Amino acid sequence: MNPAESETVLRRLSHYARCLRRVIGIGQNLVTSEYLAGPCGTTAASVRKDLSIFGEFGKRGTGYDTRELLSAIEKVLGIHDPPHLVLVGAGRMGRILAEDGIPGSFYSFLAVFDNDRDIVGTDLGEIRVRHTSEMKVVLTGNNRFIGIVAVTPGSAQEASDLLLACGCKSILCYNMEPVSVPEGVGLRYVDMPTELDMLCHSLSHENDR
Amino acid sequence: MNPAESETVLRRLSHYARCLRRVIGIGQNLVTSEYLAGPCGTTAASVRKDLSIFGEFGKRGTGYDTRELLSAIEKVLGIHDPPHLVLVGAGRMGRILAEDGIPGSFYSFLAVFDNDRDIVGTDLGEIRVRHTSEMKVVLTGNNRFIGIVAVTPGSAQEASDLLLACGCKSILCYNMEPVSVPEGVGLRYVDMPTELDMLCHSLSHENDR
Repeated sequence: MNPAESETVLRRLSHYARCLRRVIGIGQNLVTSEYLAGPCGTTAASVRKDLSIFGEFGKRGTGYDTRELLSAIEKVLGIHDPPHLVLVGAGRMGRILAEDGIPGSFYSFLAVFDNDRDIVGTDLGEIRVRHTSEMKVVLTGNNRFIGIVAVTPGSAQEASDLLLACGCKSILCYNMEPVSVPEGVGLRYVDMPTELDMLCHSLSHENDR
Repeated sequence: MNPAESETVLRRLSHYARCLRRVIGIGQNLVTSEYLAGPCGTTAASVRKDLSIFGEFGKRGTGYDTRELLSAIEKVLGIHDPPHLVLVGAGRMGRILAEDGIPGSFYSFLAVFDNDRDIVGTDLGEIRVRHTSEMKVVLTGNNRFIGIVAVTPGSAQEASDLLLACGCKSILCYNMEPVSVPEGVGLRYVDMPTELDMLCHSLSHENDR
């Protein structure tokens, strides 16, 4: 990773990209750094600094060209050509994910797997749920995907292992159960407990500020 | 914030705390830094460094006393006395949150609000859903809580404003819609789109490594 591309900066770029898609959606051609800063919880100066790392964008007093900036950010993040998503676990949480999609993004689900015979064969949005035993056949020849693990507690490692056996290089766990993956495989968690702890930390140190 | 208490270190402490609760749950009195490192995706050296910031823990070759370490981490994060949670939005996502609770943590829901007359009066686990118009009365005198916003798209700001009007100082949005809050109020998002973008970034820069 380029040292400029710290986790913090990359996370902010991801927010800027969603913000830009929204404003492009309402027909806006220009945005200011102040505008981008607001919803991302940062300052206009930080926005300008973040963006200056990746090139020369925007003009003082005019702002950024929304499409040009979005396209540049998408390239940095690699999301100009987003990988597909493969969901393992079509229970309550999995259903919401597959049916509602990923807001503000262009990720789409390639396949959904479960091992519950009552769920296999049902449809989630436009995708038919397949049995996990079909995973290898379905995913053969396609290893540029992100595996989403949304299984019941106790099954996250098993689900991850199935994905890894299909060449999966990136896993997002929708379940805080720790999972082990080989070096070189990306692993992240959608991490409500940690976010709560961060808020709790701020609350309990309010008087320090 | 103490400079040692960077976001990254605090997030790891939150993971260590959940890991320690699990091992305490299975009766383990000691853990090594290697053990804590594994599920948190870090190294034993990082674990030792993170923990050394907050005091002297553990003995070389023996490991950390699980209860002592958990108690110290809980104090740093302020989670030895966790604030209650107040949920706004008892739709599909809200129901899962309130019924399943927050895995590996001791946060509990104080109240759940919605403005849909069909949902108000129903029970989520042991909590009755109340109408948002009751929020002020229910929350009066209690401002040490984290508000969880899990409403339908388009309503996140309105839900946050209701919480803020009740003295809420911390909001976690389960919805990526950007929300504005006054300075001094903690705001975080459970951020699936950003996590996906981070994985995507790693995938697309795999060849750089």
